[in-house]
Amino acid sequence: MILTVTLNTALDVTHHVPKLVPHTSHRVTAVTERPGGKGLNVARVLAALGHEVTATGFAGGRTGAVLRELLAGSPQVTDALVPCADTTRRTLAVVDGATGDTTQFNEPGPLISSAEWTEFLARYEALLPGAGAVALCGSLPPGVPVGAYAVLVRSARTAGVPVLLDTSGEALRRGVAARPEMIKPNAAELAELTGSREPLQATRDARRRGAHAVVTSLGPDGLLAATPEGTWQTAPPRALSGNPTGAGDSVVAGLLSALVEGLDWPARLTRAVALSAATVKAPAAGEFDPRTYEELRQAVSVTGGN
Amino acid sequence: MILTVTLNTALDVTHHVPKLVPHTSHRVTAVTERPGGKGLNVARVLAALGHEVTATGFAGGRTGAVLRELLAGSPQVTDALVPCADTTRRTLAVVDGATGDTTQFNEPGPLISSAEWTEFLARYEALLPGAGAVALCGSLPPGVPVGAYAVLVRSARTAGVPVLLDTSGEALRRGVAARPEMIKPNAAELAELTGSREPLQATRDARRRGAHAVVTSLGPDGLLAATPEGTWQTAPPRALSGNPTGAGDSVVAGLLSALVEGLDWPARLTRAVALSAATVKAPAAGEFDPRTYEELRQAVSVTGGN
Repeated sequence: MILTVTLNTALDVTHHVPKLVPHTSHRVTAVTERPGGKGLNVARVLAALGHEVTATGFAGGRTGAVLRELLAGSPQVTDALVPCADTTRRTLAVVDGATGDTTQFNEPGPLISSAEWTEFLARYEALLPGAGAVALCGSLPPGVPVGAYAVLVRSARTAGVPVLLDTSGEALRRGVAARPEMIKPNAAELAELTGSREPLQATRDARRRGAHAVVTSLGPDGLLAATPEGTWQTAPPRALSGNPTGAGDSVVAGLLSALVEGLDWPARLTRAVALSAATVKAPAAGEFDPRTYEELRQAVSVTGGN
Repeated sequence: MILTVTLNTALDVTHHVPKLVPHTSHRVTAVTERPGGKGLNVARVLAALGHEVTATGFAGGRTGAVLRELLAGSPQVTDALVPCADTTRRTLAVVDGATGDTTQFNEPGPLISSAEWTEFLARYEALLPGAGAVALCGSLPPGVPVGAYAVLVRSARTAGVPVLLDTSGEALRRGVAARPEMIKPNAAELAELTGSREPLQATRDARRRGAHAVVTSLGPDGLLAATPEGTWQTAPPRALSGNPTGAGDSVVAGLLSALVEGLDWPARLTRAVALSAATVKAPAAGEFDPRTYEELRQAVSVTGGN
């Protein structure tokens, strides 16, 4: 079983409009709702790859109830979310049919009480022994201590479970110091962590800060990985147009599933890049286009080595 | 009891953002949710004025359940909504903190089956004998016949209950022909109905199409009324800045409450303008600022007569 942690889950709502014109009224032509927050996207991709997945984190209020109801529609993902009294946030993505661009509105996360945080820690400790790997994903909701991910990384290391951390800002800075197996920053998150905008230098610097391996997402340019076994770069064979939301979550799912399956770094990176590109071709985060994935798995090249 | 009909109810969600920038991501600083759709706004204002109100129309799905839960927080409004299998729509208003302007996203309404429409008609007929007046408000959800308001107007007339119709387009055109007591178009709706953009001429023309009285909303310029007793114009004593959403619904509540109380046209119009202006000073549709209302009731002037 792979355990995904989403402390700040979300109900992701998408509105399609013919054309976005600020300060006017729009007829929404299509509405979708999905369980969201990075870790839940990772969980759905892992499940689609055939892995057993357990999802924990917080869910509360009416939005949390809807999220759990939708999550029950993915029976391969075991719901181990911890109830909270405050209401799970929504994110709204408005997709402009004229340009394909997305305008995003993210509600504030629920306020987590210290009793709820303590309850979550107990749930996490109870789930760890059954986990082959852990993904810690996304932002921290209000009330959760900023050093939360450092605590969760140390618990996983103590339990001997490899852990991938995918967050940003101070939560990332503190989490990295607890020495996770992997982090997966994008270029902006890496620059914030290291102060460097030169990808290779910044990726190596992030390793020195504590992560065993750093896989930097370069967007359409693919992935750059600095690991104990060497440094690699990989990219899709061609630029793909589509919706990049969730592409990073599919990188996490690719890396973790390949880790659990015992694959080496080039195979992990190939899977991660192919899944990420196949997600750009899918309508929503947490999904991927299977034909693009199968095609790209054969076509992705990895350069680098020791 | 005053009966309000909202066939296309909505859960109104408001997102406040510091500044709206299309095609970027926004942190929402405050979220509110309220029962919506014009008729439910009218019901809440009528209740605040001390009238007994019954609200009917359709509610369904998760959104409908949330709407009814929120409506239960206004115990002066009796919930007589008819369940539908499809999901009640949401409207999202994004308020730009930099300019105060609102960008609106309206989800499509639920598909109403013919069995559900038949059930609604039975509920409406059962409620009419207890009603002192009826407000028919807003758009028709898919599946409801375009001549729906004409049917509802005729039933009310047969029952001897005065009816105010507040809708637009073809639903208004057909409803007017059934001879409602009042319609309350805005300038654009009136121009669409009559083909004239000259307010006085168009207001009088709308009467000739069947409405006993036509009260045209001129936005900040107040109201223009053509009635069997004469023609009046009234406006607030000064321009008021604020949020105009729901101002038209407060006009409806003002007109209907004053009608039921037996007030004459100048008094009806004074109340409607004062309530409408007081709604501009309130944070949301279906609410009004009581101090502004009390102040303006004394200060609104009505011109015109026979």
